[in-house]
Amino acid sequence: MKYISKKAPMGWNSYDYYDTTVTEEEVKANAAFMATHLKQSGWEYIVVDIEWYSRDAGTKREQYQYIPFGDIEMDEYGRLQPAVNRFPSSADGKGFKPLAEYIHGLGLKFGIHMMRGIPREAAHRHLPILGTMYCANEIADPSSICKWNPDMYGVRKTAPGAQEYYDSVIGMYAEWGVDFIKCDDICNTNLYVENPYSAAHEIEMLHKAIEKTGRDIVLSLSPGPALLEKAWHYEKYANMWRITDDFWDRWDLLLDMFQRCELWQNHVEEGSYPDCDMLPLGKLHKGFGEERDTYLTKEEQKTMLTLWCMFGSPLMLGAELTKLDEWTLSLLQKTEILKLVDNAYHGRQETRDECCAIWSCVNADTKEKYLAFFNFNQELQEISCDLSEVEQFREMSFHNAKAEELWEGEQTELTEGILTAQIPAHGVKLFRII
Amino acid sequence: MKYISKKAPMGWNSYDYYDTTVTEEEVKANAAFMATHLKQSGWEYIVVDIEWYSRDAGTKREQYQYIPFGDIEMDEYGRLQPAVNRFPSSADGKGFKPLAEYIHGLGLKFGIHMMRGIPREAAHRHLPILGTMYCANEIADPSSICKWNPDMYGVRKTAPGAQEYYDSVIGMYAEWGVDFIKCDDICNTNLYVENPYSAAHEIEMLHKAIEKTGRDIVLSLSPGPALLEKAWHYEKYANMWRITDDFWDRWDLLLDMFQRCELWQNHVEEGSYPDCDMLPLGKLHKGFGEERDTYLTKEEQKTMLTLWCMFGSPLMLGAELTKLDEWTLSLLQKTEILKLVDNAYHGRQETRDECCAIWSCVNADTKEKYLAFFNFNQELQEISCDLSEVEQFREMSFHNAKAEELWEGEQTELTEGILTAQIPAHGVKLFRII
Amino acid sequence: MKYISKKAPMGWNSYDYYDTTVTEEEVKANAAFMATHLKQSGWEYIVVDIEWYSRDAGTKREQYQYIPFGDIEMDEYGRLQPAVNRFPSSADGKGFKPLAEYIHGLGLKFGIHMMRGIPREAAHRHLPILGTMYCANEIADPSSICKWNPDMYGVRKTAPGAQEYYDSVIGMYAEWGVDFIKCDDICNTNLYVENPYSAAHEIEMLHKAIEKTGRDIVLSLSPGPALLEKAWHYEKYANMWRITDDFWDRWDLLLDMFQRCELWQNHVEEGSYPDCDMLPLGKLHKGFGEERDTYLTKEEQKTMLTLWCMFGSPLMLGAELTKLDEWTLSLLQKTEILKLVDNAYHGRQETRDECCAIWSCVNADTKEKYLAFFNFNQELQEISCDLSEVEQFREMSFHNAKAEELWEGEQTELTEGILTAQIPAHGVKLFRII
Amino acid sequence: MKYISKKAPMGWNSYDYYDTTVTEEEVKANAAFMATHLKQSGWEYIVVDIEWYSRDAGTKREQYQYIPFGDIEMDEYGRLQPAVNRFPSSADGKGFKPLAEYIHGLGLKFGIHMMRGIPREAAHRHLPILGTMYCANEIADPSSICKWNPDMYGVRKTAPGAQEYYDSVIGMYAEWGVDFIKCDDICNTNLYVENPYSAAHEIEMLHKAIEKTGRDIVLSLSPGPALLEKAWHYEKYANMWRITDDFWDRWDLLLDMFQRCELWQNHVEEGSYPDCDMLPLGKLHKGFGEERDTYLTKEEQKTMLTLWCMFGSPLMLGAELTKLDEWTLSLLQKTEILKLVDNAYHGRQETRDECCAIWSCVNADTKEKYLAFFNFNQELQEISCDLSEVEQFREMSFHNAKAEELWEGEQTELTEGILTAQIPAHGVKLFRII
Repeated sequence: MKYISKKAPMGWNSYDYYDTTVTEEEVKANAAFMATHLKQSGWEYIVVDIEWYSRDAGTKREQYQYIPFGDIEMDEYGRLQPAVNRFPSSADGKGFKPLAEYIHGLGLKFGIHMMRGIPREAAHRHLPILGTMYCANEIADPSSICKWNPDMYGVRKTAPGAQEYYDSVIGMYAEWGVDFIKCDDICNTNLYVENPYSAAHEIEMLHKAIEKTGRDIVLSLSPGPALLEKAWHYEKYANMWRITDDFWDRWDLLLDMFQRCELWQNHVEEGSYPDCDMLPLGKLHKGFGEERDTYLTKEEQKTMLTLWCMFGSPLMLGAELTKLDEWTLSLLQKTEILKLVDNAYHGRQETRDECCAIWSCVNADTKEKYLAFFNFNQELQEISCDLSEVEQFREMSFHNAKAEELWEGEQTELTEGILTAQIPAHGVKLFRII
Repeated sequence: MKYISKKAPMGWNSYDYYDTTVTEEEVKANAAFMATHLKQSGWEYIVVDIEWYSRDAGTKREQYQYIPFGDIEMDEYGRLQPAVNRFPSSADGKGFKPLAEYIHGLGLKFGIHMMRGIPREAAHRHLPILGTMYCANEIADPSSICKWNPDMYGVRKTAPGAQEYYDSVIGMYAEWGVDFIKCDDICNTNLYVENPYSAAHEIEMLHKAIEKTGRDIVLSLSPGPALLEKAWHYEKYANMWRITDDFWDRWDLLLDMFQRCELWQNHVEEGSYPDCDMLPLGKLHKGFGEERDTYLTKEEQKTMLTLWCMFGSPLMLGAELTKLDEWTLSLLQKTEILKLVDNAYHGRQETRDECCAIWSCVNADTKEKYLAFFNFNQELQEISCDLSEVEQFREMSFHNAKAEELWEGEQTELTEGILTAQIPAHGVKLFRII
Repeated sequence: MKYISKKAPMGWNSYDYYDTTVTEEEVKANAAFMATHLKQSGWEYIVVDIEWYSRDAGTKREQYQYIPFGDIEMDEYGRLQPAVNRFPSSADGKGFKPLAEYIHGLGLKFGIHMMRGIPREAAHRHLPILGTMYCANEIADPSSICKWNPDMYGVRKTAPGAQEYYDSVIGMYAEWGVDFIKCDDICNTNLYVENPYSAAHEIEMLHKAIEKTGRDIVLSLSPGPALLEKAWHYEKYANMWRITDDFWDRWDLLLDMFQRCELWQNHVEEGSYPDCDMLPLGKLHKGFGEERDTYLTKEEQKTMLTLWCMFGSPLMLGAELTKLDEWTLSLLQKTEILKLVDNAYHGRQETRDECCAIWSCVNADTKEKYLAFFNFNQELQEISCDLSEVEQFREMSFHNAKAEELWEGEQTELTEGILTAQIPAHGVKLFRII
Repeated sequence: MKYISKKAPMGWNSYDYYDTTVTEEEVKANAAFMATHLKQSGWEYIVVDIEWYSRDAGTKREQYQYIPFGDIEMDEYGRLQPAVNRFPSSADGKGFKPLAEYIHGLGLKFGIHMMRGIPREAAHRHLPILGTMYCANEIADPSSICKWNPDMYGVRKTAPGAQEYYDSVIGMYAEWGVDFIKCDDICNTNLYVENPYSAAHEIEMLHKAIEKTGRDIVLSLSPGPALLEKAWHYEKYANMWRITDDFWDRWDLLLDMFQRCELWQNHVEEGSYPDCDMLPLGKLHKGFGEERDTYLTKEEQKTMLTLWCMFGSPLMLGAELTKLDEWTLSLLQKTEILKLVDNAYHGRQETRDECCAIWSCVNADTKEKYLAFFNFNQELQEISCDLSEVEQFREMSFHNAKAEELWEGEQTELTEGILTAQIPAHGVKLFRII
């Protein structure tokens, strides 16, 4: 799908810290922080995640993440609106327009989350579809639901009024000034075990609706794992798709991501970004119960960031930005590493086994060459690599080559074209070959 | 589960002819016919099948079997009521009581269908549960739906108010005089491919609610295929469970039933009846579009009835009784065959391959012995059996034995204990060994 | 299948202690011990397990359990013979006859293990089938192998000479005096994931071959898990079938057995014994590397024995009998508990959840009633049961009833028909209600 | 994997006509025909398919395709040799060297088939591995077999001697002058349903062995379907891999190939060729029973050839070349269509539904543009396409564009950028846009 830039989107998302509860004020604070401290390193999207239309979101958190049959803000055409008690500037039907303007004013871009489909309540109330003679109950599919969120019914594939409904919603978003849409329960509709791609037609409807707006809007699909056999379809109709179920700050999930990146490594291209999900860094989880620090060690955080960058994944911060400690902030300002997400850099897994992985990365124009050693063990491990055997380095010469480690800055000599290094537990070294 | 008799239920069900549309007058006509022509052969249940609470059932038949977000009759406690436009005697909150009285007056028993769970509309409207401080939205599980019917949400396993809801519904049914409940979307909740027994707790709730009424009510579970690994659970909490998805009048489905009966043959006991589903005979399908005759040939109809009887399945007629032709009616009056459904008769598959099956049946008290030869081929086939090798006939003597065929009445001699017969295509011969 | 007694077989098996290495002398020592200390408690079978035909069994144990292309003893008809270096009395073609005679002389019964099929070596050498004009290569199926043992090829279903091969083998076993055959890779041919019952025809061939011998030989099928949908087939053609993969002395496997017994509880009948596998008690594992004591705690051992007995499983000791300590021996002499394996005692699971299970057992003739409380937790747990709600105790009176615990002998009063007890971690109390 | 050219291999394979029975004389005749009539159109490989080492191949064809425990030609190191009775020039240990020389002399290339692994007979006979102290029984894995061919055991992953065995075999092939190896039972080891990529290590061993020879040898892997999640592994270690099980001349299989090409369309690159399998044209099947003509209609043959070319599949003729009719021969000489297999032409599926598919193809250098309309229906169908919506044609101008159909040569005008054509049943039109 058409796309506006030559690298995967970089930004912030409210979910990992706020769950369903983020407010306008909190969004603005994060945006202001990004504009000041992160924009110059390439970070630009501010994304409000799930259930911004819920007035009571989070009020029964010990019982439900998403309150069934809860109190939602919806217009007379079944279109969800920001909950005014949480987003005061949306009062009087202004939607997210004022907030988007604020964010644009900071030189940033604005994104929102949506669930695929139409609100169940709209269907049960037989609400009209804007600009049509059809009603919600005629386009809602009562057997198409989300496994984990009770808000919506899927939209029928062939029902008159269905495309118009999506047009009415996405048109409204474009009018608000939305630059990024994260649509959920659509990349893998996981209730339907035998048909996880049951919403393929809704992806196509979204694509059409976005094209009709004429606005550059990034389309991001969740949740994963995306289906490898639909790679061609994601690439045609979307910009990002989640290759994993929700990623959180646990080593087992991080380790698992290496296998996912192996599978999807050939699918990263301009406008096509397999998505490793948010980066759970700094403070997390307030909306889920209690605020806590990320469980990832510093080494694991560098491992994560290196993998995401070499692979070329979108980078979305799952942190409360205003509470970032200095060390974490410094990670996010490492532009010599972050630049690897650019499509000009071509990252590939060289080898992977139970103990370690090696990735290489080459810029075909500048001939820059990178090599990353990842240690999966719980102890320090020596890893080495004969550069002449690296597929991407074929026919390159390494006479007198040296290696500069990018996280720590130290230099290493190569011995007969072989690079050897001590890698800390769960850690990484990322070398530029010079 | 406790049960009132020593044989599987025999009766009539409105579905195969009327789909969702049957009316009070039509039910009465079928009941009157049964009382006159079939009661003396053991038929006794009159069952009103699905969506008797729907006012608009059948009005959009080319588009939907079950109209989503349709027009239903429901009391202030979220309990579905007979649609008064279809069941006039139910006016003024009388429910099915008057109809049940009419049927009891004919010396017959009265059954109704129900979907597991609570009406979606009750949940979205937050209706109260009778006799509790809880509301429908608190016990409804928005992620538990039926794959093929849009009316209900399943009930949560541990929600306070859930058992009380079922008590309120089943208590009302008992008060109406209901003798038989066919509960649907519960035996195999087939949307949930990885957890088809997701409503196990609702089976237990129904059982408890029935026990509380003190009334003898048969509990029948649909749809199939039932799960063999839950045989022990069905036996404990229900009386009948469908071992097949909807059975219709097609040879492939009938042939398939032999494999299902093989699987379940050891599970037929007093009060425990694996259910081969309705017998699609005579006129069918009016509610599905156009009335038509059964597609089963006469031979296939005898094959079906013989298998159901030897296996010990419930026998539920899926026909418009008032339109039965004489030949079909005569089948249903063959008491010397129908009696084999009695638990005293112990039926077992002797052999089965791609061409034929042989079943044996023995009454341990009377020593009556039966043998049925089924021909699966499309041509006449000779089948024979050495009675000394029949497991159930072990240690019995067949000196001078003869065989009397029960459908046609002819007698055959055995040759050295071997019974041989010519069986028509898709047909059966059922022998009493004398 | 026909069977000689009214209870599941009880005996000893060489595998858990000796793996593939047991010798004649060791078998005799175990048999002598059984005759002296266990026979009077009902134990009677002595079974020599896998690869008694291997001369080099166990010599490369760190690399292989079963040496591929190893050194086997085989006659000119492709029939495996006892390895003379391990079973000296088998010299000169006498096979297991002398050993069987010794065991019979002690008043015990003799069993051996076999792999289904024909030795691969016989097929590659084109050996003749006894009494036929066919050769091993004509009946061996080169695509039917065992996942875990390299010795045999399965036998083709329809090949002339196939039944004759099995007749020649089983006839030889009968001549030797074998009373019990444990046939392996046949109950669940687990290499064939989509067709684990691929050797159904070999079960039938074995059955026919045994019937032809006229000798009472128990047919036991391994490994499990047996397929519930083939229950009717096991019951027809075998006496025992393993409902589990190899059982060992680990709590997780023991806990798992409760789920397996739930599934199979309705299938225990005279001559039909779902098999929970050997009892790993006392000293174990010498042949697997190093001798060690069972990992099961004393409480777990009582739990195991109680479950096996109430369920009605065969009881096969997986211990070196001559090294049994006194406590373990005393378990195996508890005749008031062991008697529950008799078919007259009808055991059923009453309830089971994550914390505990309750089983009941009734003797329909003597009216004896038993109740067992199993504690799955890692701490002491109080369990109680209202006897009036136990399905098997229906319509029995418990006025003034008492309970006698059978492992420890203590007596407990019931309170209003309710039995309550403190059950140790992973332990059991087994009550007789009096 | 390294590769010698910029297009997928084109040639002839003996299987579709000869099954296991082809002889030296027949191979030569086909080679001579190719040199004369097809070489100038790009066809160059002559491949001898399965069981060239079998002396009795085909002699029990009604019973077996591959005779188990049959009569094979093998050297003292367990390396299979051409059966001298079929390939006389291989006498005296010369192997395929003389035949390869003959084929090279015609200006063509020579390929042979192999089964992965080591002959079972070598393992059972404990034959030595050339140049090592190890024997076949030490590297053969008795639990790794082929589902459909009885000749070999797989080779163990970590056994010393295993790589040396493959080196000894492939080294011998290189010495013979082999240019192309089709290795079977390796791309999808389909017996192992839960692990169809069980021979991944044997692919890597083959790759290493080929690299060691220093010879340009194409490595082709069979059978399919290849595993999409291993695409990166095939690309790294092989040149071709079958994306389908055996393809034959049936419409359902051809239709199915469209779905397979959809899946693999992004994976065709220089040296990396997903393989649609042989083209069953002209006379077929003599070795399978009786010679017959292809079942594909002329339209279907053009559909097949167009799809294979636009997709970029290897093209291997499955025909007896010497019996080709003129029409079929003319298909194989259509160089303006065959040239599309060149990597410079970039083919993509534009759309596909149940009725039709549209593929586009672009040469980025020459700007040539192609569009193919495929009709899946059994009747003539009008298909049209707006060229401005074709993804690959984006930003190209179609002012005054015309279309030339390449099979029949006719020209068509476009109407406002829309190309419309009548496509015959199961047929294709392939347009060059000019």
